Amino acid sequence: MSKFVLAADIGGTNIRAAIIDGTGHIHEEKCISAHLSNKNTTEQSVILTLTDFFNIFIKKESQIAAVGIGFPGFFIGNSGVLASSPNLPKLKNFKLAQMLSDALNIPATAQNDALCAAVGELHFGVAKGQKNLLHITLGTGVGGGLILNHAPYTGESGMAMEFGHLRVCHGPSAHPCGCGGYGCVEAYASASAVASQYFDLSGIQLNSKDIYEKAIQGEHNAISTLKNAGHKLGMAISEAIKLLDIHTVTISGGLIGAWSLLHPAIMESLNSQLIPPMQGKIQVLPSTLNDQAGLLGAAALTRLA
Amino acid sequence: MSKFVLAADIGGTNIRAAIIDGTGHIHEEKCISAHLSNKNTTEQSVILTLTDFFNIFIKKESQIAAVGIGFPGFFIGNSGVLASSPNLPKLKNFKLAQMLSDALNIPATAQNDALCAAVGELHFGVAKGQKNLLHITLGTGVGGGLILNHAPYTGESGMAMEFGHLRVCHGPSAHPCGCGGYGCVEAYASASAVASQYFDLSGIQLNSKDIYEKAIQGEHNAISTLKNAGHKLGMAISEAIKLLDIHTVTISGGLIGAWSLLHPAIMESLNSQLIPPMQGKIQVLPSTLNDQAGLLGAAALTRLA
Repeated sequence: MSKFVLAADIGGTNIRAAIIDGTGHIHEEKCISAHLSNKNTTEQSVILTLTDFFNIFIKKESQIAAVGIGFPGFFIGNSGVLASSPNLPKLKNFKLAQMLSDALNIPATAQNDALCAAVGELHFGVAKGQKNLLHITLGTGVGGGLILNHAPYTGESGMAMEFGHLRVCHGPSAHPCGCGGYGCVEAYASASAVASQYFDLSGIQLNSKDIYEKAIQGEHNAISTLKNAGHKLGMAISEAIKLLDIHTVTISGGLIGAWSLLHPAIMESLNSQLIPPMQGKIQVLPSTLNDQAGLLGAAALTRLA
Repeated sequence: MSKFVLAADIGGTNIRAAIIDGTGHIHEEKCISAHLSNKNTTEQSVILTLTDFFNIFIKKESQIAAVGIGFPGFFIGNSGVLASSPNLPKLKNFKLAQMLSDALNIPATAQNDALCAAVGELHFGVAKGQKNLLHITLGTGVGGGLILNHAPYTGESGMAMEFGHLRVCHGPSAHPCGCGGYGCVEAYASASAVASQYFDLSGIQLNSKDIYEKAIQGEHNAISTLKNAGHKLGMAISEAIKLLDIHTVTISGGLIGAWSLLHPAIMESLNSQLIPPMQGKIQVLPSTLNDQAGLLGAAALTRLA
């Protein structure tokens, strides 16, 4: 096998891609703005956008053995077929990997973006060497990827690890969530939820990055907001641990910039919820790869395919 | 391999054992009263009790190829080693399968009792032919067993599927649970929780069997109690499905006697909690094996070992 793969992480507004070698070293990385997250996006427009972008890399480096991509949506097992994608309603049973492979004449794999990030953490990040991993992504939403016995876990219809929609609050005070439900952890720990809680406390509109920076500087309302997000994350993690008995959890996303505040809140809440023999057994670690985890995982998946 | 195995299901006060053939047919079944659930129970007393009982079967049927047992507690993977058991504090890293095998001179396997029941449902019950299964046991406590890709799932320290301790209520009205926490599904759907809720509504002390019989006869307080138990079970099942994306759930235990009331309450609550693309995809089925599921699963595990 050639030593290089081309990996990409597809977001709603940006596509990041890189040439990556077998040790996880990133040799070239580019990011383009491409609006793929609207209700008119078709299979053809996705394939066209990706092949145009990927051909820039392929022209520079002829020794690309495989292409691996992380894409937001539900994939059927390891087939590379996208069953559906919440923000891209025209894509149904989209043979993404196959069509990309045909267009580029290079073997291709495709998998859920958060699951790719979990694979990246396992192969190249702080979870290296673990057998099982629960990886949580804090961003616009709260997502997750699960590794069981070294293998990405997708569930029966590619919808496993809807971690962001675990319920951490019941009753009339539960926050509404974008899924239509109430009290989901995403409604407390996503970037917009953090901004909204901070606004409720302070009357000031700030983005989540500004809030965690204010928290680090000691601002009271920012600290309260982040502690509450950490507390709710710990509750959701405890539910996953009770079912799965996994000992390693990693978290990526902007909020981990305030890890010194977030981590104690997570651990306190997590350990208070677990059954006694599990208390103190779980390590929750901040990602060291952050926004490269998805790229690295997509690269690793081409080698596992 | 001989066509017979000896299987046993070890409870706190009773031990059930049977000779079972490869088709799941039970040829002989006995139940003895044996108090193994106290804080002074030792490894030696467990082995002695079991070998005395098992020798009754072995004397009758010489063609027993293996012994398989289900035991309450946390097992390390498929090793047959009991890491610990909440009600039997003297048992730690107890090589149950190995010691039993040495004592009887027959290969032996041992696994968590609820997980054995899940294996029984998968091989011989309503979940036959499924690849993945979430099995819930409603009894003194609320337990569970998980099958992923045909294999029993134990977690990293044998503590997976603490289903009874998933939280379905937060805040000051949450019921206290035996684990020390609040709002666990066990605090709403176990036999004693059902009895306690019925008492709160009616002022009458009844056991859970009497309550489900009253519910079937149309008694208002009994119906409310069972609907609430079903509602809370649906909430806990939804959390497991969000993480695992499993499409088949089975439930065993006395309360399923009132399935016509319990099932609609479970399904309404479950579907209202799932993310939209998962709604309507999950089947929740009553066990047809009931208290034989554990025996049959323990038998099946000897053949998988």
